[in-house]
Amino acid sequence: MAVKVFLDEADMPKQWYNLGPDLPTPMQPPLGPDGNPVSPDMLTPVFPMNLIEQEVSQDSWIDIPEEVRALLYRWRPAPLHRAYGLEKALNTPARIYFKNESVSPAGSHKPNTAIPQAWYNKQFGIERLTTETGAGQWGSALSFASALVGLECKVYMVRISFDQKPFRKVMMETWGGTCIPSPSDTTEVGRKILAEMPDTPGSLGIAISEAVEAAVTDPTGKTRYALGSVLNHVMLHQTIIGLETKKQLAKINEKKVDVVIGCAGGGSNFAGLAFPFVKDKIEGADIDIIPVEPASCPTLTKAPFAYDFGDTAHMTPLMPMHSLGHKFIPPPIHAGGLRYHGMAPLVSAATRDGLLNPRAIGQIECYKAAVQFARAEGIIVAPETSHAVAATIQEAIKAREEGREKVIVFGLSGHGLMDLLGYEKYFAGELEDHYMSDDEVRESVKSMEGLPKP
Amino acid sequence: MAVKVFLDEADMPKQWYNLGPDLPTPMQPPLGPDGNPVSPDMLTPVFPMNLIEQEVSQDSWIDIPEEVRALLYRWRPAPLHRAYGLEKALNTPARIYFKNESVSPAGSHKPNTAIPQAWYNKQFGIERLTTETGAGQWGSALSFASALVGLECKVYMVRISFDQKPFRKVMMETWGGTCIPSPSDTTEVGRKILAEMPDTPGSLGIAISEAVEAAVTDPTGKTRYALGSVLNHVMLHQTIIGLETKKQLAKINEKKVDVVIGCAGGGSNFAGLAFPFVKDKIEGADIDIIPVEPASCPTLTKAPFAYDFGDTAHMTPLMPMHSLGHKFIPPPIHAGGLRYHGMAPLVSAATRDGLLNPRAIGQIECYKAAVQFARAEGIIVAPETSHAVAATIQEAIKAREEGREKVIVFGLSGHGLMDLLGYEKYFAGELEDHYMSDDEVRESVKSMEGLPKP
Repeated sequence: MAVKVFLDEADMPKQWYNLGPDLPTPMQPPLGPDGNPVSPDMLTPVFPMNLIEQEVSQDSWIDIPEEVRALLYRWRPAPLHRAYGLEKALNTPARIYFKNESVSPAGSHKPNTAIPQAWYNKQFGIERLTTETGAGQWGSALSFASALVGLECKVYMVRISFDQKPFRKVMMETWGGTCIPSPSDTTEVGRKILAEMPDTPGSLGIAISEAVEAAVTDPTGKTRYALGSVLNHVMLHQTIIGLETKKQLAKINEKKVDVVIGCAGGGSNFAGLAFPFVKDKIEGADIDIIPVEPASCPTLTKAPFAYDFGDTAHMTPLMPMHSLGHKFIPPPIHAGGLRYHGMAPLVSAATRDGLLNPRAIGQIECYKAAVQFARAEGIIVAPETSHAVAATIQEAIKAREEGREKVIVFGLSGHGLMDLLGYEKYFAGELEDHYMSDDEVRESVKSMEGLPKP
Repeated sequence: MAVKVFLDEADMPKQWYNLGPDLPTPMQPPLGPDGNPVSPDMLTPVFPMNLIEQEVSQDSWIDIPEEVRALLYRWRPAPLHRAYGLEKALNTPARIYFKNESVSPAGSHKPNTAIPQAWYNKQFGIERLTTETGAGQWGSALSFASALVGLECKVYMVRISFDQKPFRKVMMETWGGTCIPSPSDTTEVGRKILAEMPDTPGSLGIAISEAVEAAVTDPTGKTRYALGSVLNHVMLHQTIIGLETKKQLAKINEKKVDVVIGCAGGGSNFAGLAFPFVKDKIEGADIDIIPVEPASCPTLTKAPFAYDFGDTAHMTPLMPMHSLGHKFIPPPIHAGGLRYHGMAPLVSAATRDGLLNPRAIGQIECYKAAVQFARAEGIIVAPETSHAVAATIQEAIKAREEGREKVIVFGLSGHGLMDLLGYEKYFAGELEDHYMSDDEVRESVKSMEGLPKP
């Protein structure tokens, strides 16, 4: 009766899994402003070629370099826990497992891709990284990875999160990074937006624009941009989560998984856990795979599959994805990491192919679930993670009602110790739910009018 | 070349180690207000009898109940890491290991005793626990443990820490606990102190008085007090740290430890790692065992071994320990957990017997060490832990100067993600050092005049 399953370092997966080539419908390419596919060469001002090669790779399995493995060992393999306390609290016949990514020094799953991205950039001779961050998890993770690998790191943080979470900046600085509220006056894009909307809370789309501009305009040519979600190579690096999980389930002889659940903002945490199970589903396994998003930012459940920009200022290529439109500025819910207007093309494509079963949940239900989880299991989860917890509780109750011994696995993407303001507001009854209406979605997607269709 | 060593749950120690009976000089008993030894019966209004039995036990080994083990499995066994990054940064021939207690859901080593204390109270029919907390680590840990075991929990938090760290309260509330700044108007002791010193920053001694009063005056008789450090049974529960560490070192064939280092406030984290090595030292091993304390609260390095009260208001028995006097109010350094006026009787006795080699370090050197550690190893440590890191760096540099391949093991007692204010002030150059002078010590210890001598 193991409460938790470790793997030795030697048993950590030696390859990442690339879902793209295994999807029933081939992936569509990103497009340039002229509507033509973007070639790898065109991305070189933004990313190093070794990562671009991963981005467009058609190999299903890609080796994890030995030095990257050694850096991941700082906290990996991450434990898989059996949620005995939650099962008891819910009186469910389901067996609930969670993969605990909160044990990383940055507190979330984000270092799984921050470490390889920093390492590949360093290999390529890059000296400086720029990036954006929403809740702060990614900016912290890239600062952490940059310190270990030996790079400079500059983070543009969505202003509302910067204001709500002043200690995220200190965290990044402790690792040697710098953190700037976005929009800022350090970029042309930022200055333009500030002139139009001086009181804007910011958005991931704006922060991405600033970070990309800061990278491509560096005259030394030694700066590149790093993205913490959405792109194929980010999904790739995160699959170590699900690959480890499958080894751990095998170790305790748990043969059949019925439900896989992860929260989905840009998609990286969800993809990391889920894609190795999506592979099983493509091969015929009967698994319900559920990305959970906020009701206030319902990308997968309400937005169209379209070609859209990844950022507000059209600095990125057009990507085929579920999107609320690149001008979308979400309500200030506390799950800052789930407020992106789009969704990873791979997660979007898997949804289009009917492999995923997305669900949207309001933040009050999510906090209620998180508090129940904290008292039953002891871990205070991140506001993002609370979405996965809420869906897990829904599924566990359903299993009880059906009287079925289902096996449910969810991703605990991070702890909430840097995000306690949301819990405080929940206890004070100050949180509001916003369920985005069909009318609001119709209005929001107008920014994509005239763009090519997938 | 393992970066980190796990143990399976089945390999977690099945007994705790009690140093008391193995000390060369027998431990002296706690005394009542009349100067006579306190009998176990006299402690029953404060603690349940099963814990009192552990407090006075003369057995060297005490079984860990199966249910307590199952609760500890939520995060234990904790990993032992090799600090390759720090070794490289210091260019030292030393092999540096650290035992990582930051992976617990509360973020520190404190749950190691919070879980058994809550469990033994529950077994004894107790429904409610009261306690004090300084930095907040202990109050958080007891709230966490009370949630898992099913008890109510009320925490008196030293006012200056309560004000500096508002999210500690939210953390405790998420686990169902309540948190009150101390001194408060909810106890007679608190009201008296507030009348005399309305602007006092509070102290652990005052908060202990309030928590004990709240426990013993509960008319239902179903409330007891829990202490997070100092007492024998707390040291006992923490020895799981050092016992695991020895198993992990054996697993990687590391046969001889030269230096063991831990930060010491009340003594529980230090004792937990060190006591199993103190046993080796008593049996003839050549080990340098170093408790590290703040220069502003130099209990072991400057204060006398004396009989003193554990709290300000004389609610506790007199304990034989190194003490700066129970009226001592330390300067507001950021390592809130290291500001107690006394030191655990077992740690004090081991120091008196020449088994330990205590050291005091100023907070600025500690923060400098913590930042170097964060950039080399990736973990942002608690301000308390930074004292162990600073001493480790001193020892690693000494090993380099001596050209010796020493093995150094230190205790990483917790992460600093709830305590980033201190880092912010360090970066801003706003921290001050205070080295307590001999004159200040002489003045401070006057509160012990007239008390019995050990």
